[in-house]
This record gives sequence, structure tokens and C-alpha cells, in this order.
Amino acid sequence: MNKLEMTQAIMVAKDAKSLTWEGISKAIGMSAEWTVSACLGMNSMPEKEAKKLCEFLELPTDTEAALIKFPLKVWDQKIPTDPLVYRFYEIMGVYGESMKEIIQEKCGDGIMSAIDFTLSVDKKEDPKGDRIIVTMDGKFLPYKAW
Amino acid sequence: MNKLEMTQAIMVAKDAKSLTWEGISKAIGMSAEWTVSACLGMNSMPEKEAKKLCEFLELPTDTEAALIKFPLKVWDQKIPTDPLVYRFYEIMGVYGESMKEIIQEKCGDGIMSAIDFTLSVDKKEDPKGDRIIVTMDGKFLPYKAW
Amino acid sequence: MNKLEMTQAIMVAKDAKSLTWEGISKAIGMSAEWTVSACLGMNSMPEKEAKKLCEFLELPTDTEAALIKFPLKVWDQKIPTDPLVYRFYEIMGVYGESMKEIIQEKCGDGIMSAIDFTLSVDKKEDPKGDRIIVTMDGKFLPYKAW
Amino acid sequence: MNKLEMTQAIMVAKDAKSLTWEGISKAIGMSAEWTVSACLGMNSMPEKEAKKLCEFLELPTDTEAALIKFPLKVWDQKIPTDPLVYRFYEIMGVYGESMKEIIQEKCGDGIMSAIDFTLSVDKKEDPKGDRIIVTMDGKFLPYKAW
Amino acid sequence: MNKLEMTQAIMVAKDAKSLTWEGISKAIGMSAEWTVSACLGMNSMPEKEAKKLCEFLELPTDTEAALIKFPLKVWDQKIPTDPLVYRFYEIMGVYGESMKEIIQEKCGDGIMSAIDFTLSVDKKEDPKGDRIIVTMDGKFLPYKAW
Amino acid sequence: MNKLEMTQAIMVAKDAKSLTWEGISKAIGMSAEWTVSACLGMNSMPEKEAKKLCEFLELPTDTEAALIKFPLKVWDQKIPTDPLVYRFYEIMGVYGESMKEIIQEKCGDGIMSAIDFTLSVDKKEDPKGDRIIVTMDGKFLPYKAW
Amino acid sequence: MNKLEMTQAIMVAKDAKSLTWEGISKAIGMSAEWTVSACLGMNSMPEKEAKKLCEFLELPTDTEAALIKFPLKVWDQKIPTDPLVYRFYEIMGVYGESMKEIIQEKCGDGIMSAIDFTLSVDKKEDPKGDRIIVTMDGKFLPYKAW
Amino acid sequence: MNKLEMTQAIMVAKDAKSLTWEGISKAIGMSAEWTVSACLGMNSMPEKEAKKLCEFLELPTDTEAALIKFPLKVWDQKIPTDPLVYRFYEIMGVYGESMKEIIQEKCGDGIMSAIDFTLSVDKKEDPKGDRIIVTMDGKFLPYKAW
Amino acid sequence: MNKLEMTQAIMVAKDAKSLTWEGISKAIGMSAEWTVSACLGMNSMPEKEAKKLCEFLELPTDTEAALIKFPLKVWDQKIPTDPLVYRFYEIMGVYGESMKEIIQEKCGDGIMSAIDFTLSVDKKEDPKGDRIIVTMDGKFLPYKAW
Amino acid sequence: MNKLEMTQAIMVAKDAKSLTWEGISKAIGMSAEWTVSACLGMNSMPEKEAKKLCEFLELPTDTEAALIKFPLKVWDQKIPTDPLVYRFYEIMGVYGESMKEIIQEKCGDGIMSAIDFTLSVDKKEDPKGDRIIVTMDGKFLPYKAW
Repeated sequence: MNKLEMTQAIMVAKDAKSLTWEGISKAIGMSAEWTVSACLGMNSMPEKEAKKLCEFLELPTDTEAALIKFPLKVWDQKIPTDPLVYRFYEIMGVYGESMKEIIQEKCGDGIMSAIDFTLSVDKKEDPKGDRIIVTMDGKFLPYKAW
Repeated sequence: MNKLEMTQAIMVAKDAKSLTWEGISKAIGMSAEWTVSACLGMNSMPEKEAKKLCEFLELPTDTEAALIKFPLKVWDQKIPTDPLVYRFYEIMGVYGESMKEIIQEKCGDGIMSAIDFTLSVDKKEDPKGDRIIVTMDGKFLPYKAW
Repeated sequence: MNKLEMTQAIMVAKDAKSLTWEGISKAIGMSAEWTVSACLGMNSMPEKEAKKLCEFLELPTDTEAALIKFPLKVWDQKIPTDPLVYRFYEIMGVYGESMKEIIQEKCGDGIMSAIDFTLSVDKKEDPKGDRIIVTMDGKFLPYKAW
Repeated sequence: MNKLEMTQAIMVAKDAKSLTWEGISKAIGMSAEWTVSACLGMNSMPEKEAKKLCEFLELPTDTEAALIKFPLKVWDQKIPTDPLVYRFYEIMGVYGESMKEIIQEKCGDGIMSAIDFTLSVDKKEDPKGDRIIVTMDGKFLPYKAW
Repeated sequence: MNKLEMTQAIMVAKDAKSLTWEGISKAIGMSAEWTVSACLGMNSMPEKEAKKLCEFLELPTDTEAALIKFPLKVWDQKIPTDPLVYRFYEIMGVYGESMKEIIQEKCGDGIMSAIDFTLSVDKKEDPKGDRIIVTMDGKFLPYKAW
Repeated sequence: MNKLEMTQAIMVAKDAKSLTWEGISKAIGMSAEWTVSACLGMNSMPEKEAKKLCEFLELPTDTEAALIKFPLKVWDQKIPTDPLVYRFYEIMGVYGESMKEIIQEKCGDGIMSAIDFTLSVDKKEDPKGDRIIVTMDGKFLPYKAW
Repeated sequence: MNKLEMTQAIMVAKDAKSLTWEGISKAIGMSAEWTVSACLGMNSMPEKEAKKLCEFLELPTDTEAALIKFPLKVWDQKIPTDPLVYRFYEIMGVYGESMKEIIQEKCGDGIMSAIDFTLSVDKKEDPKGDRIIVTMDGKFLPYKAW
Repeated sequence: MNKLEMTQAIMVAKDAKSLTWEGISKAIGMSAEWTVSACLGMNSMPEKEAKKLCEFLELPTDTEAALIKFPLKVWDQKIPTDPLVYRFYEIMGVYGESMKEIIQEKCGDGIMSAIDFTLSVDKKEDPKGDRIIVTMDGKFLPYKAW
Repeated sequence: MNKLEMTQAIMVAKDAKSLTWEGISKAIGMSAEWTVSACLGMNSMPEKEAKKLCEFLELPTDTEAALIKFPLKVWDQKIPTDPLVYRFYEIMGVYGESMKEIIQEKCGDGIMSAIDFTLSVDKKEDPKGDRIIVTMDGKFLPYKAW
Repeated sequence: MNKLEMTQAIMVAKDAKSLTWEGISKAIGMSAEWTVSACLGMNSMPEKEAKKLCEFLELPTDTEAALIKFPLKVWDQKIPTDPLVYRFYEIMGVYGESMKEIIQEKCGDGIMSAIDFTLSVDKKEDPKGDRIIVTMDGKFLPYKAW
């Protein structure tokens, strides 16, 4: 079973049981954001969580093995077309160099890691229209001189 | 004076006076993130703030006019090469669909606005290595049916 | 059933019953433009309309579920080749900055939303050759300063 | 004087005289949308209107000659980055095939001309937020069989 | 039956009966150029001709329905690789602006329509080597001012 | 003087003398189509014609030398944006394989040369709207087997 | 049977019989280079040679028909990745303009035909390491003036 | 003086003295093909030859230094547009895999070096039209196993 | 059996037997790096090693034949998306010209061969976080003058 | 002074003084590889080293300031054309997934950092032809689960 088939199996089980990502992630004791990314094949899931997830969704063991595999992270669209995803691309284009200025002013020359990294997505209720709060938390990695 | 010349004039003044973005943004009463984006030509600055900024940096009035202009937001590199900026591109590729799943589970079909939007970049000290916290706050916009 | 199979099922039923988009959209009480976009997998259809549509076209319930799903909006051709669709690309290229000038003169710095958005396509009879009238109606979203 | 220099000359004069596109277009008796497109170098202006415009803006005669020239319509960004212009690209991607379905249902196989074409951009006030109304009016051109 | 399967069915029948495009097009009373384009799925065929063609080639009625369908004109290679097709791309690159100069000198600002358009391809015998004569005949469409 | 400067010099002289391409090409005894292509830097002009052209337009001898030079034929836009030029790209996309079928049926496997090639562009008056007739005449080159 | 299936059938037969391209091409009396190109679907094979080849390889008659077909020459990778093929791309990039200078100095303005063209690939033994000799022989085609 | 200015200086001197590449290369005792490539900035010229060339063309010593520099070999057009250069691209596309088959049959798995490589371009007179003979001679480099 | 099926067969066997690349490569007496590259279809394996590998993994003989085949080295993503692989792309972008400067200073004008080339990947334990050591060893190939 | 002008100033001084990178890097007490990358504008140089370098090369203080600036790392060629640099691109394409397999087998899921990273380039003399040894040393960064 490859990662693509794994995602489809999980999606079918999730729909059949009318579950939410929140419910699934609580069942395995992890955040919803990371759980989804592993179910979509963009992160590998440690054995313990993979086992719990397959039990919770009543999926066979080859799904468990597929969840554990280290993924080759591939996306086809260099510029995403889906409006929700594109907006993050646009934010990178509009604010990328601004974020670089601020990060370097605060920490010196370096980058924010996208590997030693966590992410959360929250809803903030607002009478003028609810808001989405995306929080990225990545380790600062300074450039080396040698 | 176009936006490019404006950015260069601001950068030269900022270096000459040994100022930080934090100092400049405080002087005009706005966030550092938005102030940088306007100085880099990616947002227009209202007249009041533009005036304060030019006084603070002792820049001529055509810089003020250039800051006020509505920008045409252009970036040349479809995929950015700078490692710091690329990491945000990578996050969009790795976690874009996961964020879509979470946002839609919480709010229904729609997007997070990149226009009715604010951004903050903070440093969190950590003995294992400081961390960068990027917080995006955008209005949820539901799709219309008609 | 995925969105692609859903579209094919709807197209086959539409042909078999010799229906028009106008007829189908009237049956579910929505505009033809939005109805087509949902049937082509570019918008999600609320449960009530999806049910009506499947009853009207005598389609099985998995088509209903597919219509309700939130779509990942994907198009493969960065520059469309079909002459009808390309003309809209050309209009964006030729008139995009002109529309920007007019919108900003009328409303200030901001954009026309493509999400809080409706669209209509009409035929206007004309002895010198009929004309197509496309009307786009999107909310103005002003940029934020913070 | 080429089209690029012409646009800059017009923009400088427009700012110096604090004019609007609406005012300029009224002075030459044409629509604002078409007037802007000619001033941005995307349409040629007939001699009479070019003369009026240069008198109104007090521009030299080589600007008039530049306005009259038939332009080579060029845009560099295959996919526009400016958020306002990108939204029209997104509309083409999301609704292009839907518009094709509706146009062909109403008129048969053919296209909407982008040459025998007019465009208007209006603001509609709305207590929930003003709206932009873009109206495209193009001749239907049926495909030939021979 | 989609357009791709239709083309394959026609090609198989054409080979099996050892027919030429010239013979097929005569049988339906249309030009060879247009007949081929419809059989390759790049134009829709009116019902009468589609019926004749299917009778002549002894093809089932779903081929007829496929021929009548309005096609989505798609080509994958932005720059064609086949040497014969590439030469037309090269002609466009080398002579495109020259053709623009001549057309505009003769007719004013506008374009040659590719929709209200016919095409013929002929062989001219020549002792120094036969020649191909391609004739394109498209309506001149002047730009509008409004 | 390079080809670009040569084209600009010719254009300025042509405008100053209110000449047409037809007039210029007659003065040097060649076709308008080829004369334009050489003046735009897409063909080299033999010494005799280059001399005549420079005398007719009263241009200095370095223009003559520039006209004679063998050009490096370069175009920047892989897909042209100008509507007039794009239509030829579209014709290649829509009818390229149809032209291949016809040429191969008439002459066997091979191509139409774009080098041993001439081109003419004519206007055909028509009460329903004038038409443009483009005629391409290229030598058929059969593939070799060896 | 399409060209792709044809190539696979030939490859399987070649392996099963432990043949070389040299052996196959001798059996049909043609060069190895051209024989391979026809077997890979990049040239059409005349009936006589196709017949011989299918007899020699004991392939069915639909392979013969596939070999005779005029191919649509398609390659997917605009820039090849295979190191052996890439080196020819690199030679074109590094030496393309040098070859242009030499050819034009020797023959005037024109090109080397890639259609009226033959190719040979030989091994030259050398104690310092064997060498590959690629010889291209194409007709010089002068540009026309008209 | 950079490589670009060097090439222009050489070209001007070559024209002023009415020299050919053949004459220049003989004067420095190297092949014409390699001499051109060095003058176009695609190879570095050893000191001795650079000196001779600058004396022969009466160019100043900074041209000599520029010729000696190791070049960064850059070409802008991924797919060349000039017809002469494009034909070599086409040959690579049409015959690349055929050359791979022949080379590997003769020498095993490996490539033809484009570095330990020489090139010659010759004219072969032919009553049916002169021919160009391009000969590439590159060392065979076998892949290593380790 | 093609290279893709071969890789899948090897991966399934490796998982089923809980083997590592280190174990497999030791069994055939080669390095792990080269062994993986051959198993992923990016190098051909000599007969002896292919036989050993298939015996060790208990794979059928057509896997052996597939391992021996000379591969066409193809990768689809011009810019890789997987973060681990992208970092090597980034290193090439950031340090490519620096490596060129150093290599040319040490050896003169030329390149490091990627064919006469070996590669090793090692882990270096470090209390501040383990490190990866990648060592590339390629023959220096000087450019030829001729 | 921007990074580009800085690089040119350093290169001119290096040539004028006949220095090597080895000599320059020793003078500032850093590795040659890192020193070159900072001089080419791909790394920022700490104040102390920048001062030493400018003294050693007798460059003015604005060069020092330019060396200290945090660079925006930009490269224009998505796929490099220079043969030396391309070979590193090719290595990434051919061996990228193999390196991923080995790294993950040794360390688990994660990447080799290109930021906490050093690089060395050495020459190894060899009677069969000298070899280049490139050693990359990057911290292993494991993916986080959260």
C-alpha cells in the first residue's frame, strides 16, 4: 500500500464513521494539524500513533505500515491553484522579504526551520466575521562561518 | 520617485542613522511587520504615517508621495531561492492541504483572506535554540452560492 | 466517487435526458452559472440543492455526497489553450492594470474578492451579431494597515 | 517617445494636476476604462481624442503621436502576482469552463470576442461592504465550417 | 465516447478501408482541412455531416454524437516538438511582428480572426522540389474604442 | 549599430517621411512582407537592396551594414501575448496536426520548410467585413532514410 | 498497435534473440542509426524495410504497419535529464552560436537541415580512452529573399 | 573588460579589418571552431594564443586578459529560437535516444564527454545543394561502480 | 520487467525480509550508495552483482535482467520538492559558483566529472546533534583547446 | 555599494594583486570555500573578517559594509547552464533519492541542513587524472511530531 492509497483508505473510513480530524487526532493524542499532514502522506507517523489510528479507524495493518513509511514529499503545482492554498503562496510573495527583515533584525543572519517546526490553525470568532489564526513555530538556524 | 527608489532611500537613511525596523515602526505608531512591507513597496502607507516616517528619517517629500502610492505587487521568482523565503514556500507545499482540511473542518468551505490580514513575527527564546513564531491572522471568507 | 466521476455521471444524465443547464439550475432554484461550476467540481453544493439535483437527474446518492464535498480547485493549464477560455486570459492581460486603476480610484487600495463573488453570463441579441455579457460582482476588500 | 515613456508622462501630469481617470475620460468624451487602457499603452487612441487628452493634460505633441501608435500588447507575467489582477486570473481558472458551458448552451459553438469588446468597472455601495461590478460585453463569434 | 476515442475509431476505420482524408471529406461535402480538424477533435461537426461521415466509415452512432460535441481545444506542448508543426511555430516567431505591421498598414489596428477563419493546404508541383501552399483566410476584427 | 538600433532608425525615418511599408518595399523592388522582416531584424538584406533602402530613407551607411548582417533570430515570448500574433499561435495549436495529416497525405513524410519559404499578407474586401489572406509557400522537404 | 507498443515489441524480440542494432540494421540493409530511430518511433520505415525487419525479428504484421506510419515526433523533456543526452544539449548551448558563425562564413545566411539529414555514431579506439565520433550531414538551406 | 565587451571588441575589429574566422584562427594556429567559441566567451584562451589574437586584431591588453579568463558558460534560451541553432536542439530531441542506444551498444554504459571534446564544421560541395558536415569527437566516459 | 517494477519488487523484498541497504550492499560486496542508486534504477548493475542481489533477496531472474539494463536517467521535478533533496539543490544554488572558483583555482579550467564519480554518505555522531557527511569524488576533466 | 558592486571590486583587487582565494582566506583566517561564498555575495561576513579582508585587499570601507550585510540569496537559472555547476545539479537528480534512502536509514526521517553546514573542495592528485573531492557536512535535523 503506497501513501496515496493510504490517504484514500483513511478518508473513506473517516467519512464512513463521520469523524473529524479533531476527533481522530485526540484519539491518538497528537495535534490535528500534524495528524492530517501524516494522513495526507506529508509526514511519517511513529509506530505507536499509527497503530492507534488504525485501530480507531478500523483499518488493516498495511495502512499502519504505510503511515510509518518516511514519505517523499512531492507537490505537482509549483504555483498552487486552489484559492485557499494560493493565499499562502501570495503571503509568501507579498510578505516574504518583510519577514526576512524582521527575523534578521531579531536574530541575525539565518532562517526559520521548516523541519524543527510545528504549526497550528485556529478559528477566532469575531462579530465582523470569524478569523483564521495560523501560527508557525520554527527553530531559528543561524548561518555558519567556517 | 518610484517604489524601488523609495526603498533604497529608506534603506540608506535607516543605515545612516543606525535605526531598526522596530524603532522606525514605533516612531510612526504601527507594527514593524506592516511598516517594513510598506517600506519595501508591498503596501501603501496612509498619508499621516508616511509623513511621520519621512520626518523621522529626514527624507524629502517625494519619498512621502511614493509611500502613499498604491503599489503593483510584483515578485519575479515564482519559486523563491533565498533559503529563508523558500522555507515559507516549502511550508505551503508540505502543509497547504493540511491547513485546508483544518480550516474547512472549523469554518466550512472558504478561504483565509490575504487582504483582510495581519502578520506578526516574534522571537521566542529557548535554551535549545531560539525559535521564530509567525502568526497570520486573516478573515475567513466563505464561498457564495447564488 | 470523486469529483471527476461525478462530473461525468452528471454529463451522461444531462445528455440522456436532453436537459440544459438552464433547466437543471431552475430545478434546484439556483443560477445556471453557479450550478455548472458545482457540477464541474469547482464549487461545493449544499446538501439541499445536491439532493434536488440528484433526484432531478435520477443519480445515485454517492453523486450527492460528491457534490457536497469541498473541492480542491485545480486547473492544469497555466495559460489555457481553449480559444473561449483564453480570451478571458487575454482580457486579464490587456485590461488587468486598467481595472486596477479604476477600482483603486473608486474604492481606494484593495481588491475585488473572487470568493465573495457571483457571476452571470447572458446573451444580448444584436442585428450586427449577438453579444455575450459577462457580469462579475465581487466584494471590495480594502488592504489593512496594522 | 515610446509607449512606456508616454505612460509615465501622463501619470506625472495626472498627479501634478490632481486629476482622476474619470475627469480625464470625460474631457475626451470616452469611457474611463478605455481611456486608462490607452494611457497604459494597451490600446491606440484615435487622433481626435489623443489631441484633446494632450491639450487637457498640457502634454507635448510627441505624447499625442505615441498615443495614436498601434501598440504591441505585451505582458511579462504569465501568471500575475498583484493580488487584484490575480483574482481575475483565478476567476478564469475557476469559472472558465463554466462560462464556456453557458455561452455554448446559449449561442452554439464559438467564443466571446476580446477585440469587438467593451468593459466597464463600477462600484455598487452596500452596507455589508461595497461591491465591484465588472461588465464585459463581447461579440459572439461562431466557429466556421468550410 | 470521448473525442480521443472518437479519433481513434475514425483512424482505425480510415486505415481498414484504405481511405484518404480527401475521399472522406468529399463524401461529406466539406473541405479536407476542416474535416480532419473535426476528426482530430479540434472542431465540432454539424449533425448532417457527422451522420454522413459515420455512414461512410460504418461507425456506430456514439461516434456521431462525439463528432457533434463542442470540443474543449487543448494542446499539451506549449512549444511543439514535431518538426512539421514546429515550423509553423517558427514562422510565427520570425514573421509574427512583420505580419502585424502589414495587417495594420492595410486595415488599421485590429487582428485577423482565428474563429471566423478558414484554412487550405495545397501541393504545388515544382521541378526544383514540390512546394506546400498554406492559405489562411480570417476576418479582420478592428479594436473598439468606447 | 546593432539590429535593434537599426530598426529604431528605420522606424523614425519611416514616420518622419510618412512612408508605408508598401512604398518602401516598392522602392527597393522586393515584397513588403520580406522588407518588413529585414527591417525588424529577422532577415538579412543583400547589399544592393540595403543600399537602395538607406538612400530612399536617407539613412547613414552603418544602417546599411546593419541590414546586411546575418541576424540571430530571437524572440522572448515563448507564447506571444499580442492578440494579433497570438492568433497565429492559436492556429498552430488548433490546426497544426490537421496540417500535418494533409501535407503527409499529399507529399509523404516530411515537412514544409520555413527557410526556403515566402509569405504574403493581403486584404480581401468583403461587405460582411474585410478579410486577411495569409499565404505561406514553403518547399516540401522529405525525411531521408539512410 | 501504436508506436510505443511497437518499440516495446521490438525491444523484447531483440533481447530474446540476443541481437544488436548493428545486426538488425544489416539485415534490412540500412544504417544502424536510422534503423534505431525508426524502431524508437522517431522515423517512419518504408514498407520493404519494415517487412524485412519484422521477418528478421519474427514480429506480427501489425508491427510492420506501425513501423510504416508517419510518426508525430514528441519528446517530453524540454531539457533532457539523461547525462548522455544532456551532453548534446550542452554542446548546442556552448557551441551553437559558434557553429552558426562558421556555417554562415562558409555558406552565407541559412541553416543546416535536420530533415535532409543523416547521422552516424562511431567508436574510435584510443589508448588514452576510446572516443565517440558523431557525424551530422545536413543540406545547407539558404534563406530566401522575395 | 568582461566577456561580453570582449566579444564586441573582437567583432568590431574583425569587421573593420574584413577578416574571417578562418583567417583569425590560422593566425593563432588553432581551429576556427574553437577560436570562435573562445571569442564568443564560451571557452578560455591560453595566454599565448590570446596574445597572438590581440596582436593580429590590434586589440588592447585588457582584451587579452578577458580572453584568458575562465568563463561562466551561460545561455538564456532554454530552447533556442534561432532556426540554425534550433535544428541542433531538434536533432538532440529526435535522435538523442538513438545515439544513446548506439553508443551503449558499442562502448557499454557511459556518455560521450562534452569537455574532453572537439568539434569541426565543414562544407561539402554537392550539385544537389551543398551540405554541412558537423563532426563531434568526445571521449567515452564509462559509469563507475563502487 | 522495467526499472520501475524492478524497484518496487526490490523494495517489497527488502521490507519483507527487514533488510537494510547496508546489509544488501555488503551481501553483494559494493557500497551502499551505489547499490541503492542501481536499485532505484539510476545505475546499471554488472551481471555478477545483480545475480548476488537477486539471490540474496530471493527475486526472480527478470529482476536480474532489469538490474543489468542501462538506464535512461529521468527525473520529473526540475526543482525537487522533497525537503531533503531540495537542500542539495539549494547547496548547488548557493555554493555552485564558489565551488567553481575553488576548483578552477586548484586545477585550471575544467569540471568535476559526474560520471567518473563516486559518492559516500556518512553519519558523524555529535553531542550537539549528529551530522551528515556527504563526500563526492569526481575526476577533474580539463577543457580542450584544439 | 550593493553586493554585486562589492564582488566586482573584490575581483578587480584580487586580479590586480595577483592573489588567490587561498591567500585571501588565509589572511582573514577562514576557509577558502566560505570566504569565496561571502565575496560572491552568498554569505554575510562578520565585521572582524570583513575588516581584515578590506585591509588586505586595500578596499574602501563601503566594501566592508557590503560584506557585512545579510544577503538575499538569489540565482537566476533554475537549471544552471555552466557545465561545472550543472554537474552538481545532475548529481542531485541522479543520486538525490539514493542519498535520502541512506540518510534515513542511518538517522531516521529528517534532512541534512544546508544552513548549519560547511563545505570543502579539495584536489586529490592521481596518476590517472587528478580528482576533486567535495565534502559537505550538515547537521541532521529530524522532523518533529507534535
